[in-house]
Amino acid sequence: MDVLLVGQSGGPTAVINASLVGVLNEAKKHNIKVLGCVNGIKGILDENFVEYDESIINTPAAYLGSVRYKLTDEYDQILNIFKKHNVKYFMYIGGNDSCDTSNKIANYFKKVGYDCKVIGIPKTIDNDLVKIDHCPGYGSSAKFIATSIEEIYLDTQVYEKGRVTIVEVMGRDAGWLTASAKIASLNNMGPDLIYLPEVSFDSSKFVSDVKKIYEQKQKVLVVVSEGIKDETGSYFLLSRNFNNNDDFGHLQLGGIALMLSELISNKLGLPVRGIELNLPQRCAGHIMSLKDRNDAYKVGVNAVKLAIKGYTGYLANYKLNELISLEEVATKVKQFPLSWIIDGNQISDEYLNYVLPLVKGEVKQKFENGIPKYMKR
Amino acid sequence: MDVLLVGQSGGPTAVINASLVGVLNEAKKHNIKVLGCVNGIKGILDENFVEYDESIINTPAAYLGSVRYKLTDEYDQILNIFKKHNVKYFMYIGGNDSCDTSNKIANYFKKVGYDCKVIGIPKTIDNDLVKIDHCPGYGSSAKFIATSIEEIYLDTQVYEKGRVTIVEVMGRDAGWLTASAKIASLNNMGPDLIYLPEVSFDSSKFVSDVKKIYEQKQKVLVVVSEGIKDETGSYFLLSRNFNNNDDFGHLQLGGIALMLSELISNKLGLPVRGIELNLPQRCAGHIMSLKDRNDAYKVGVNAVKLAIKGYTGYLANYKLNELISLEEVATKVKQFPLSWIIDGNQISDEYLNYVLPLVKGEVKQKFENGIPKYMKR
Repeated sequence: MDVLLVGQSGGPTAVINASLVGVLNEAKKHNIKVLGCVNGIKGILDENFVEYDESIINTPAAYLGSVRYKLTDEYDQILNIFKKHNVKYFMYIGGNDSCDTSNKIANYFKKVGYDCKVIGIPKTIDNDLVKIDHCPGYGSSAKFIATSIEEIYLDTQVYEKGRVTIVEVMGRDAGWLTASAKIASLNNMGPDLIYLPEVSFDSSKFVSDVKKIYEQKQKVLVVVSEGIKDETGSYFLLSRNFNNNDDFGHLQLGGIALMLSELISNKLGLPVRGIELNLPQRCAGHIMSLKDRNDAYKVGVNAVKLAIKGYTGYLANYKLNELISLEEVATKVKQFPLSWIIDGNQISDEYLNYVLPLVKGEVKQKFENGIPKYMKR
Repeated sequence: MDVLLVGQSGGPTAVINASLVGVLNEAKKHNIKVLGCVNGIKGILDENFVEYDESIINTPAAYLGSVRYKLTDEYDQILNIFKKHNVKYFMYIGGNDSCDTSNKIANYFKKVGYDCKVIGIPKTIDNDLVKIDHCPGYGSSAKFIATSIEEIYLDTQVYEKGRVTIVEVMGRDAGWLTASAKIASLNNMGPDLIYLPEVSFDSSKFVSDVKKIYEQKQKVLVVVSEGIKDETGSYFLLSRNFNNNDDFGHLQLGGIALMLSELISNKLGLPVRGIELNLPQRCAGHIMSLKDRNDAYKVGVNAVKLAIKGYTGYLANYKLNELISLEEVATKVKQFPLSWIIDGNQISDEYLNYVLPLVKGEVKQKFENGIPKYMKR
């Protein structure tokens, strides 16, 4: 029986496990045995494979475990392991770094003439993969962020004389996640100012923007990306994550909300609170977007369908006839369109038209002991 | 027509508005007109009154706005305003400071012989009111915290070699909120270590506890109260909230997670991340506990029933025949029982028996634009 290996890579998302289930259900139809590799590529090298079932579909994070591992010269080792286990299909769920890994494996197999179809499955809360309309994982994170902003808005309104509240959102190089705060504006509970990494951050303009709004309203709600950069293109380095740099050399950011809080306190003497939405942005399964969950499932299904059709070295998309090669996607970043950013601190309605379908619908989680019932390995 | 004035005080909760609706619905039955004072006591002094309706029942925060205002000599002014508007009932929703305020007003009215029934309505995420079994607001915060811990647990499990994750939870003087992280253990996704303010925090013991667990599991999940104190009883002062001290002189805390992250990084050189759950703990209406919402509604109803029976100077309870005077509750703090804390860093099953009923059930929110539909003034 032919074996399909599937792995998860990069950061967790609320819906990444739905892609695993999509792969499993479609593979079954073609009489292919599915095994998951524990901790991505690392699980291949360790021959650490497990079976899984449909029960994980609504569990966030990464059921198989993930890895941030950059291949150097392990291709021959992988080939031998695949031959040994009769692996004819390999699906790797991840972002642009994972696409690069999958692409290299696909190219190696082609070069040595080993018949194994390699398909990437898109996943990233950052929504920064090129070529594809949107990435599974983004919709649920956006739904969590916009809901949190709406609720923080209500919280910050309760006192007559309020404060400046600065909320920090993930997204190292692209502002998609930060922009999602704008959804709350549709319910009249949105932020006053939004700062994305695509536009260089001018501290003194920021202070004067905050001052102006505070004078009018006695409260200001600011949403800012962890990845904002100064006019030289450098990150504001105030990392709150110690010893955390990964194998790809990505610096883990965080701490911008605190830094800007200190700035406002020093420059304007106003009451101010910094809030970092932090890890819950990527694992809040309890407020998963139904559309996002369904999209994640669908790219899992389509990955198997592409492989069965004979494709290798491609990224699964929502429509089978819209092909995207891994080559085109690997290591590239799709930034938030500059034309959707107004005056450096506002987001246009065009973005809302884009994002609203992605946050639509709720997944009804099962609860146990008053909290969602999730699965673990 | 007799008028009932109702106000909200202190910090927001997810369910405080359900108490407003309970008051309204019960008052209607007795042909009493209900008006809400905007921003608590401040709204009385400003004669800033509004009507409201049932539509706010599932909206978090405080629909009428809140205040942290300590009365000095405004009693006569309040009396005249009450007489002017024919106010015969006053209900104040809040914690122990608000009970103190209500008690003083009740006593003043008794002293001058003005017939107005004053009833306090319990509310605090901190769950620290004495005499009452549990406080409306706590169950929803506990549900949010335990859900977040469960999801953070899953997130922190994805990498083979993980990190130390330190989650900071609200609760200045009582550990009830922090303890709620323990609920996630029932689903096998709980924290390794929990630190409450009731037990003095020993930094070197903490470092060695973390070291031991990391050596076993390569990852550690710590939950810590913002209000932990050293052996002299002093807070660890690393406030991330600037210029925020309130009228009651309470220092606003925050920053413990960051401080302890730096400690672990310095002492053990381990990868570590600090997470502050922050404001969403008290306003996450999207994961409201149904039991908590119903409790908040019920104390609103019972407040009116007590007043109709002729009581004044009491706190509304779940059962009408279990009377609690405001005098007994004002400014007092109910701490987490020491007997439920094991070895200074674990929580006993007795607590779980206490808390599970409080987090039970989910409120089905209406959604609009992919996020909950809430009401504002």
